[in-house]
Amino acid sequence: MPNDKMQGENAFELLKLRKTTNKLLEQDFENEAIVAGYIDNIREVGKGLCFMDLYDQYGKIQLTLKDSISENMKDISKLTRYSFMMAVGKLVKGKAKEGMEIEVKKFYLLTEKASDQIPIGLDGQNTGLEKRLDYRWLDLRDPDHRLPLELLSLFVMSGSEYFYKNDYTEIFTPKLVGYPTEGGSEIFILPYFNREAYLAQSPQFYKQMAICSGFEKVFEVGPVFRANPSFTTRHDTEYTSFDMEIAYIRSHHDVMDEEERMLNYIFKKVDAECANKPKEYRNTRVEAPGKIPKIKMEEAYELVSKGNVSGDGDLTPDGEREVAKYIKETYENDFVFVYDYPLTTRPFYHMFGEPMKNGTETTKSFDLLYRGVEITTGAQREHNQDRLASNIEKKGLKKEHLTYYIELFRYGAPPHGGLGLSPTRVVKQMLNMQNVREATFAPRDPKRLFP
Amino acid sequence: MPNDKMQGENAFELLKLRKTTNKLLEQDFENEAIVAGYIDNIREVGKGLCFMDLYDQYGKIQLTLKDSISENMKDISKLTRYSFMMAVGKLVKGKAKEGMEIEVKKFYLLTEKASDQIPIGLDGQNTGLEKRLDYRWLDLRDPDHRLPLELLSLFVMSGSEYFYKNDYTEIFTPKLVGYPTEGGSEIFILPYFNREAYLAQSPQFYKQMAICSGFEKVFEVGPVFRANPSFTTRHDTEYTSFDMEIAYIRSHHDVMDEEERMLNYIFKKVDAECANKPKEYRNTRVEAPGKIPKIKMEEAYELVSKGNVSGDGDLTPDGEREVAKYIKETYENDFVFVYDYPLTTRPFYHMFGEPMKNGTETTKSFDLLYRGVEITTGAQREHNQDRLASNIEKKGLKKEHLTYYIELFRYGAPPHGGLGLSPTRVVKQMLNMQNVREATFAPRDPKRLFP
Repeated sequence: MPNDKMQGENAFELLKLRKTTNKLLEQDFENEAIVAGYIDNIREVGKGLCFMDLYDQYGKIQLTLKDSISENMKDISKLTRYSFMMAVGKLVKGKAKEGMEIEVKKFYLLTEKASDQIPIGLDGQNTGLEKRLDYRWLDLRDPDHRLPLELLSLFVMSGSEYFYKNDYTEIFTPKLVGYPTEGGSEIFILPYFNREAYLAQSPQFYKQMAICSGFEKVFEVGPVFRANPSFTTRHDTEYTSFDMEIAYIRSHHDVMDEEERMLNYIFKKVDAECANKPKEYRNTRVEAPGKIPKIKMEEAYELVSKGNVSGDGDLTPDGEREVAKYIKETYENDFVFVYDYPLTTRPFYHMFGEPMKNGTETTKSFDLLYRGVEITTGAQREHNQDRLASNIEKKGLKKEHLTYYIELFRYGAPPHGGLGLSPTRVVKQMLNMQNVREATFAPRDPKRLFP
Repeated sequence: MPNDKMQGENAFELLKLRKTTNKLLEQDFENEAIVAGYIDNIREVGKGLCFMDLYDQYGKIQLTLKDSISENMKDISKLTRYSFMMAVGKLVKGKAKEGMEIEVKKFYLLTEKASDQIPIGLDGQNTGLEKRLDYRWLDLRDPDHRLPLELLSLFVMSGSEYFYKNDYTEIFTPKLVGYPTEGGSEIFILPYFNREAYLAQSPQFYKQMAICSGFEKVFEVGPVFRANPSFTTRHDTEYTSFDMEIAYIRSHHDVMDEEERMLNYIFKKVDAECANKPKEYRNTRVEAPGKIPKIKMEEAYELVSKGNVSGDGDLTPDGEREVAKYIKETYENDFVFVYDYPLTTRPFYHMFGEPMKNGTETTKSFDLLYRGVEITTGAQREHNQDRLASNIEKKGLKKEHLTYYIELFRYGAPPHGGLGLSPTRVVKQMLNMQNVREATFAPRDPKRLFP
């Protein structure tokens, strides 16, 4: 509630007339405007004259406070950095520079007695990421820091729109599970009444269960959990996964084609929204992938340096960058599908494929790289119970641990495949950021559970 | 891959030409059609003549197999209940009844050696819910059982569309948290590296953190966890919560008004989609709420029987049904907002309101009832750190456990409020179902972690 000392009885009611900064138009010059937000860059330029920037989520506007106009100029000392306030005044053409400003007639503090000792980003000081994350709710008052999260939201909502238009069903799969879904390592375990439960490392099993249930195209955007004790720029112990699965495919190429359509839809949408947004967004151009080049893993091997193929036949992160660099130079595309990964690098439920020329066994699988970073892993899944059982054996896994998985396919299943995509990695790459945590609202690592 | 014995080399490629049953049109009569799905109601009506229904997610169609037409009639014994298969044949006008059918020229089993011993729903046997849930992926092959999950998906995707059009940001908040967010009871605890973590009981803290971060309208659809040892028709240990939070509100009435707009948008959308869908959907009419009646809690007390107000001043489930019955009779509306709940029934972060006539302290809070069941709890939140601290004290909670919560408001916050809605309860009420688990893909209770 606005500070009693600064307002009449119904000042709060004025919020009904509030306009967000992106809705203030030149045609409203000289009219009354009511805005609300938090303030920054307070400049007292002389006795009885003060400028400041008011921010809302959608932009900012300069406020001019003058003792000849502002009725409660005496309360100005209460307006400190990051105060939330409401201002009533006249919208005018900006004097000092292009744009507009408000000559404030009256202002209202929306939170009284807030601390003005902002612990981060003071005086242009470049606060380190860890401290920024400690005070994430202040860190995000910087619109540049909020941008990745806004793009993440746009990405997911545009994806939902694509799925909606293409007859997908959104599913909500359990995160408390009775079996370790991805094989057991790096999994969180918790007491669950008289037994133990696990936190799902992926919705893989449940997406396939949906397909076995008669759903044909499903997607889910939700949390996944990995008890990963390491710290890297690409991993968290909890992150958002964007997963889809489709039935009646011919091979993993149908999944890649669907991802290409989906990403083109989403990227175009995100780009259009960015272009529409004022100020901060303007510098962001999000180029849609168009036709995404594809390269077989055994061809990728020929492009990368010796040390950039790991022991199991996967590409190292440096190897992925080498492939991406080649593709960028050759096809001018930031994206590339690498497909037909060796058996040794893929989980048991990926369908086996044709061997490489040198006889190496492969899977009907793929990764999608975006500016040199893997953003998607996908595959056609093995849907025959006998072959699934033999794959498990061949990979040296214990069949008795995976009986529940095979059970799903006992009563038939259509051919199907799908993918998991990391939307935070996409945003990281979109904005050329160093760390996926910049695109994560409240990141989690072995040491961080707050905020 | 189709059974080798039943197909030529490239039979699998035919899936490219597959049409879903909802895309088969009268104008295609006498043309070749390729369909795929699972089969049921196999009727061998004589030697060399067999009918069956082929289901895909979008409907069903009758297949007619005749030895004069079907090339691989000898393989018919492999087609058992719930086999996934692909059929190539001629689309013709249905003979026995209205509609259409396919005279099958050739068919392909899509999963060889699947078991034909379907453990549930055999011979019209009405399998109980628990056994149905044990084999959920078979249970859902019944389109009637899939319907609630399809409506759930429609509800959430239409909600996402509403939010997209109204400048909301979708947020992804952590489920692994360092503090028990809702006060500590019925919370799952797990070992987290060298300490303990909790599973979030609601995204409440994080929605408010987003508001403090400068976001103005946020939403999230995600899992929440309650270590609730009881079994009821309305509770699970894990369920999907649909949450939103908005800033710069005048009171909880602004939140109710926003929910009214949102639900009208969503219900109209769901209804339109249902009307468009073939077959199973046709019987579903989803009436939009229109202008939702509102009633103060102290007025609700006067409508309900003595025993239907609990000790703390809340309505019992029977009390909620009494209020709903009165509203339905008086206003012909399935929805009603009950607002201004007593302090004793609400958490510390609900803003205190005006006392009732008899002096009972209240909160700026509300519930939304749909056909007599609570589907939403909402409120304006207290955003002043000092009043929040005094509320905590007044409610007899330990301030030192909630320091982290107060910390969020130390640096200011705009007035804000929001709500949590249970989309599975909405679907349960939409379809007049007995149990919320019918609208849950893979329900969780103290005894159930699989599938």
